[in-house]
Amino acid sequence: MLIKLDRDSHTPVYEQIKEHIVGLILAGRLKPGDRLPSSRSLAESLGVNRTTVCTAYEELEADGYVASHVGQGTYVLPQQKLQVGISSGQQSLLRPRFSRRSELLHRHKWEHFGEGRVDRILFSGLTPEEDLFPIELFRSAINNCLRERGKQLLQYGDPQGYRPLREYLSMRLARYSISASVEQIVIVSGSQQGLDLVMRILTDPGDRVVIESPTYPELFPVLAQYQAEIVTVPVGNYGLELDQLEQRLREKPVQLAYVMPNFHNPTGATMQLEQREKLVEIAQKYGTILIEDDYEKDLRLEGTPIVPVKALDSTGAVLYLGTFSKGLFPGARVAWIVAQEAIVERLVQAKRCLDFQTNLLMQAALAEFCAQGYYDAHLKRIHKIYRLRRRRLLEALEREMPEGVSWTRPEGGYAVWVTMPQVLDAAELLDEARKHGIFFIPGTQFYIDGSGKNCFRLCFSRTDAEQIDEGVAVLGTLIREKLRRIK
Amino acid sequence: MLIKLDRDSHTPVYEQIKEHIVGLILAGRLKPGDRLPSSRSLAESLGVNRTTVCTAYEELEADGYVASHVGQGTYVLPQQKLQVGISSGQQSLLRPRFSRRSELLHRHKWEHFGEGRVDRILFSGLTPEEDLFPIELFRSAINNCLRERGKQLLQYGDPQGYRPLREYLSMRLARYSISASVEQIVIVSGSQQGLDLVMRILTDPGDRVVIESPTYPELFPVLAQYQAEIVTVPVGNYGLELDQLEQRLREKPVQLAYVMPNFHNPTGATMQLEQREKLVEIAQKYGTILIEDDYEKDLRLEGTPIVPVKALDSTGAVLYLGTFSKGLFPGARVAWIVAQEAIVERLVQAKRCLDFQTNLLMQAALAEFCAQGYYDAHLKRIHKIYRLRRRRLLEALEREMPEGVSWTRPEGGYAVWVTMPQVLDAAELLDEARKHGIFFIPGTQFYIDGSGKNCFRLCFSRTDAEQIDEGVAVLGTLIREKLRRIK
Repeated sequence: MLIKLDRDSHTPVYEQIKEHIVGLILAGRLKPGDRLPSSRSLAESLGVNRTTVCTAYEELEADGYVASHVGQGTYVLPQQKLQVGISSGQQSLLRPRFSRRSELLHRHKWEHFGEGRVDRILFSGLTPEEDLFPIELFRSAINNCLRERGKQLLQYGDPQGYRPLREYLSMRLARYSISASVEQIVIVSGSQQGLDLVMRILTDPGDRVVIESPTYPELFPVLAQYQAEIVTVPVGNYGLELDQLEQRLREKPVQLAYVMPNFHNPTGATMQLEQREKLVEIAQKYGTILIEDDYEKDLRLEGTPIVPVKALDSTGAVLYLGTFSKGLFPGARVAWIVAQEAIVERLVQAKRCLDFQTNLLMQAALAEFCAQGYYDAHLKRIHKIYRLRRRRLLEALEREMPEGVSWTRPEGGYAVWVTMPQVLDAAELLDEARKHGIFFIPGTQFYIDGSGKNCFRLCFSRTDAEQIDEGVAVLGTLIREKLRRIK
Repeated sequence: MLIKLDRDSHTPVYEQIKEHIVGLILAGRLKPGDRLPSSRSLAESLGVNRTTVCTAYEELEADGYVASHVGQGTYVLPQQKLQVGISSGQQSLLRPRFSRRSELLHRHKWEHFGEGRVDRILFSGLTPEEDLFPIELFRSAINNCLRERGKQLLQYGDPQGYRPLREYLSMRLARYSISASVEQIVIVSGSQQGLDLVMRILTDPGDRVVIESPTYPELFPVLAQYQAEIVTVPVGNYGLELDQLEQRLREKPVQLAYVMPNFHNPTGATMQLEQREKLVEIAQKYGTILIEDDYEKDLRLEGTPIVPVKALDSTGAVLYLGTFSKGLFPGARVAWIVAQEAIVERLVQAKRCLDFQTNLLMQAALAEFCAQGYYDAHLKRIHKIYRLRRRRLLEALEREMPEGVSWTRPEGGYAVWVTMPQVLDAAELLDEARKHGIFFIPGTQFYIDGSGKNCFRLCFSRTDAEQIDEGVAVLGTLIREKLRRIK
């Protein structure tokens, strides 16, 4: 590669190298897949410092012209802009007709609260702290599984899920008084997939589905896609308002109702035993199927566990959803559904048709990890840490929030729900908070009708003591200022 | 645990132990999750050999009463029969109303060709030989990824797929003359999921979808579920019959057409360049989107590679599906779709909504494994082996098959398609073959209308030279006998 460098130019040398290479790519003289010379050899041939060439390559990579892989060198990537330029010169792109499903999904207001570099204090994602992931123990479980059963685990397997994992879950569920045989458990790739499969086999377009208000926002596009008629029932301090639920069920049949009885997302509310019993009774009475999403079952930080709704159900009216995403790690993408066998059969058909099976190696490694007692040990460890963070957050709110602001005190999970006076807008607060590097999710996200303007959710799972103190102090100051301005 | 043993009884001691424990479980005195005494301690307390207790425990496990985990002992499992007994005594099970989708899936004729213990010679599954899996190298890639980026890989990530894997694929696709930027690639959990997502975003109930006849049978329930109107076009020696395709497209608009231009499943047919060009032209002319399933791209065993249909497409009319399931291992559950960006955007929305993301650790490990050159090295190695097996199979067919039987000679992939005289039935042949431990898939499986009775597919990926010789000799004899009986 011959590059004429002008060392007297105002353009830095690395920039000259970069521009030259971009020119070659755009001219088609360097083609997708072509390898650039090594930084060492190019530096030598140009008589420049190797760092200079590396800087040029890094910029090329950042701009999407090349990709580099350790030990493989740096390769030219196909150029999208280039391509579109060429093809639009020849023929226009086919404009596909998308399905109604896709149009409904497309119309969904996708919020991309992607964390940026400026975000230092993350009250946002309802996700465990990655610094606490038991990576080494999990790695060792994966190694054991691959060594012992690698051939089996990398082949096709049972769509219902890896049997030893279902056996482990069957035993674990028995601890919570849920009696589920291995035949009544289906492994899915995360609760989100569980919801898709349940909607798929149990709802037709126009079917009424009850959701809590507010609720888990990633459910909204699923409901839109399956064209459910959404019926909202408010959540009080102790979960779903049952009188209102019954009223809605009485009005007109409801096919499904989605509830989070433990540490409800986003409010943190927990249903008491009596209400759980009543909930099952109502569902049975009106023939409505309950989806009990017990995503934070293993994250009770205070108080006594309450028996799951599923354990109170003798008629198979409850589908129980559990997951490793909150207590262990989301990246495993392993969750499970407990249901009566007639429903399991349908779920397995839909699962096989959807993706054959959830990753077997993950299932096997989790089964081994759990059976060795590591999951329980991990929970013990993180409970201590999250309990401290929770207390710290509640204390900081107590100290920093002005009058008129209230918040929940969940007995478990990772989130506290804050309600400001009606005149305030959490989206505006977020704009200002992000200037201070503070990130949280505003309340409107959790309501299908866009209400909840004056509310927001604070997760404490990924913030340490100092971040909590600093973050809440800033939020308190910002809210105070806003209130002062309004008065 | 006190068990009265009768050493003079005809019932063996292990059986007595087993029956006693079953009694305790059925009576509810041993509850789900309860741990049985260790075999050592029970053997000591009963004064019997430890093997006797182990046999009893193994039988209990085989009957589904208990489960054992290494290092964790043996636990009582919840009893399904028991449970149903109790609940049906109290209240009957709720009978859910299933969706139309689920009813259509349920009506699908699910064939469960599960391999049994008797099957010794597996001509059945179109799946790579697990003895050839590069498990150790993959294990080392997983270890590197977990050590270096474990926190990131076990968190939530980008629904479009892990960027370094998309970068690698972008480079790899460039080798095949497909110019795809990282923005034009979506990672999915296997091609099967890819098909679901494509059907989801591009078809409404009643839309016409062209499939090859015969074709990949796991597509049938997907088509049923999405209520496609299926239009079949026959496959000849060089793939899809293009005149018939054009005729069908001219009759009435067709939204999608699903094709396998390389080593078509099950016939092994490969479309030549000229036909590929004509295929793209037809699709563009009639506004039909092509799904090019290039599942065995990396498995050409003979002849010169032909440019993919996608590479001939300048209007974004082709969706290209690739996978690691055939060249590497199915258990990774990692495949990819290449499409124009307007379609990618919709696929990513649907993917996020479906399961957030494909397992990141698998994606990262595959990216590393491939970038290190291990995938190409692996392909070289298996090509040698599969080439031998293919030749062996073709030679055996030549030697053993009577007149009137014909078969294909695919240039790649794992399967040969055998056609017997019309009077013969491959399902009957299979029944007899299985008595000899030989397993294959009869032709009717690959036709939506149940034709192909006299055909069957022989895969040579999981059979060694002796098995091929023996298997084909037996099949030849059986066919000869059948023909003799008919005459």
